[in-house]
Amino acid sequence: MPKTSDKKLSYEKDIPSNPKDWKKWKEERKRQKRKWKEEALIKKLEKEQERKKNEEEQKNMAIEEEKVKERLGIQQTVSIALPGSILDNAQSPELRTYLAGQIGRSAVIFNVDEIIIFDETGSTNRSVEGQYDGVGKKGQANVQLARILQYLECPQYLRKSFFPQHKDLQYAGLLNPLDSPHHMRADQKCYYREGVVLNKPVTTGKGSYVNVGLLKEVQIDKQLQPDKKNLKGKVVAPTLPKVEGGLYWGYQVRLASSIGNVFTECPYKEGYDLTVGTSEKGDCVDTMEKKQYRHALVVFGGVKGLECSLEADEELEEDDPSALFQHYLNTCPHQGSGTIRTEEAILITMSALRPILSHADEGQKTS
Amino acid sequence: MPKTSDKKLSYEKDIPSNPKDWKKWKEERKRQKRKWKEEALIKKLEKEQERKKNEEEQKNMAIEEEKVKERLGIQQTVSIALPGSILDNAQSPELRTYLAGQIGRSAVIFNVDEIIIFDETGSTNRSVEGQYDGVGKKGQANVQLARILQYLECPQYLRKSFFPQHKDLQYAGLLNPLDSPHHMRADQKCYYREGVVLNKPVTTGKGSYVNVGLLKEVQIDKQLQPDKKNLKGKVVAPTLPKVEGGLYWGYQVRLASSIGNVFTECPYKEGYDLTVGTSEKGDCVDTMEKKQYRHALVVFGGVKGLECSLEADEELEEDDPSALFQHYLNTCPHQGSGTIRTEEAILITMSALRPILSHADEGQKTS
Repeated sequence: MPKTSDKKLSYEKDIPSNPKDWKKWKEERKRQKRKWKEEALIKKLEKEQERKKNEEEQKNMAIEEEKVKERLGIQQTVSIALPGSILDNAQSPELRTYLAGQIGRSAVIFNVDEIIIFDETGSTNRSVEGQYDGVGKKGQANVQLARILQYLECPQYLRKSFFPQHKDLQYAGLLNPLDSPHHMRADQKCYYREGVVLNKPVTTGKGSYVNVGLLKEVQIDKQLQPDKKNLKGKVVAPTLPKVEGGLYWGYQVRLASSIGNVFTECPYKEGYDLTVGTSEKGDCVDTMEKKQYRHALVVFGGVKGLECSLEADEELEEDDPSALFQHYLNTCPHQGSGTIRTEEAILITMSALRPILSHADEGQKTS
Repeated sequence: MPKTSDKKLSYEKDIPSNPKDWKKWKEERKRQKRKWKEEALIKKLEKEQERKKNEEEQKNMAIEEEKVKERLGIQQTVSIALPGSILDNAQSPELRTYLAGQIGRSAVIFNVDEIIIFDETGSTNRSVEGQYDGVGKKGQANVQLARILQYLECPQYLRKSFFPQHKDLQYAGLLNPLDSPHHMRADQKCYYREGVVLNKPVTTGKGSYVNVGLLKEVQIDKQLQPDKKNLKGKVVAPTLPKVEGGLYWGYQVRLASSIGNVFTECPYKEGYDLTVGTSEKGDCVDTMEKKQYRHALVVFGGVKGLECSLEADEELEEDDPSALFQHYLNTCPHQGSGTIRTEEAILITMSALRPILSHADEGQKTS
């Protein structure tokens, strides 16, 4: 059968030189055209069916998730935001890495769903594709912090697949492990596991092979393209372990080019409905009462405080941080040190806010 | 006048050879004896007077302090205890030092008065005189942690006087400063300052010269022996800045050879009257109510938890930590990480307990 692009050419080539054969040729041409039309129709139908099937699957997954949400109450999230510039305050590349690790561990201890790294200087990339040029050269702190946080959040057995060697990760060996529920050893049992689809031949009708950090590979229920992240054994939405299993399933990392974009580029369609700014100049944390919320955001300042971060944002006309947040809080009244470092402030603040932010599903299992 | 040690010798030497001169010699001898007696008496009296004067000064100081205490309410203290073995969990000598610094900063942030380093292995020295033999060789972690904490607590301008070069302090340059009220820069003004008495000649009736970290030396109101610690410009008790001035004035460091000795060797005569043990297995911190106390103690476990520290203490018959403490608390319910490191636990716990431990004199100034 001629290829579609050769259609016209093949007609002209096939035109018989003897006019007697024209009728036969015309009939043949008609038959051919009918055949093509039918084939195109079948293809279209097949495509439509596949689309519908996918849609249905997506729908079913959403329904399943919705059911779980109903069963467990509204799904809440907690986000924290901090400037990447805090890395520039570290005294060596090793301590720079260690500091990033402290942030990651703090987030996991308090079941944080999203870490937003914002730029205090107004010159950041929004992806982690950039290169970090070494201590001393500023500006790449945001990207490096984001990269280390992503690396740390990735289960150990998947890191080789997703994180090629990179300068930013040179001292990753010094990082303390997160020890979160989704970082499983080979002998640990859990209903969910993260995995990477392997580039291995699969027989028709059978699912792909996946490395989920067990001694043996797992064959899943679907055929998937390899080298995509966040694929599970029996494929479920990545939010399911949290909403259905009550398991903390790690954090997402987001880069924001300014403190304003921390708010405007919120990944939740409803936006953040409980916002807290932290500062020694804020109100005493003890005055805050427990609130209903879906998406909480707690924002930390850098070496010079939140006031400085606000000034750097040229698009934001607000310079008074108390006007930007629903709550502007001093989470460590009567502090004995003149300064509280951001990595310290995260643990102190999240601990002070824990009774206020504690989830509706208080009885969540942790492992 | 002959020296005391030459007395006998000089008598014999002076005995006259001619017996006629004996009477004169005897008289002279009597006179001499009387003189010595008188001199000894005067010396004794002077000593007695000095002792009385010192006693009176001490008494006055105590009275003054008592008055201040009455004015500001009962003076409360907060102590924390942790095993030095946590240092052995660090991956490099630099991170070992950094970890010790994190403990010091946490203590200062929460106005901790005493840090007790206890031995989990049952083989510790009680002073910081020992040598730290480098990473890998265990057992000296307690001493090293204590030494670094003392070094960090000492105002920068006094460190050269009190801390000779030592292996334990090799990476002290990496320590983040405590930034506490008693660590003043040369241009900062404060009613109190710590200082070291200088080995400089002083005219009678005038006080000693003291380096208190100002550009010029200060002449104080008393003559003091140089090279003693904790001497102030106008000499006051080291607790006065806290009780009178409401200033946090750093912490004391104490080594305990076992967890039991954390309690039994308490420096406060009344002992600790509010004791808290921390563990994931404890009761939820939210159940604890605010209490009256004079001397609070919060005890942290090491890498393997408080249960392990108790087992190591052979003198203590109690293996159940909940029986050892008035309160046995989980200060981070629903933790998202399987483990909380001791340096993290201190910030989390002290923040969670802050409303409960907050001082009677809530309005204390912090700088």
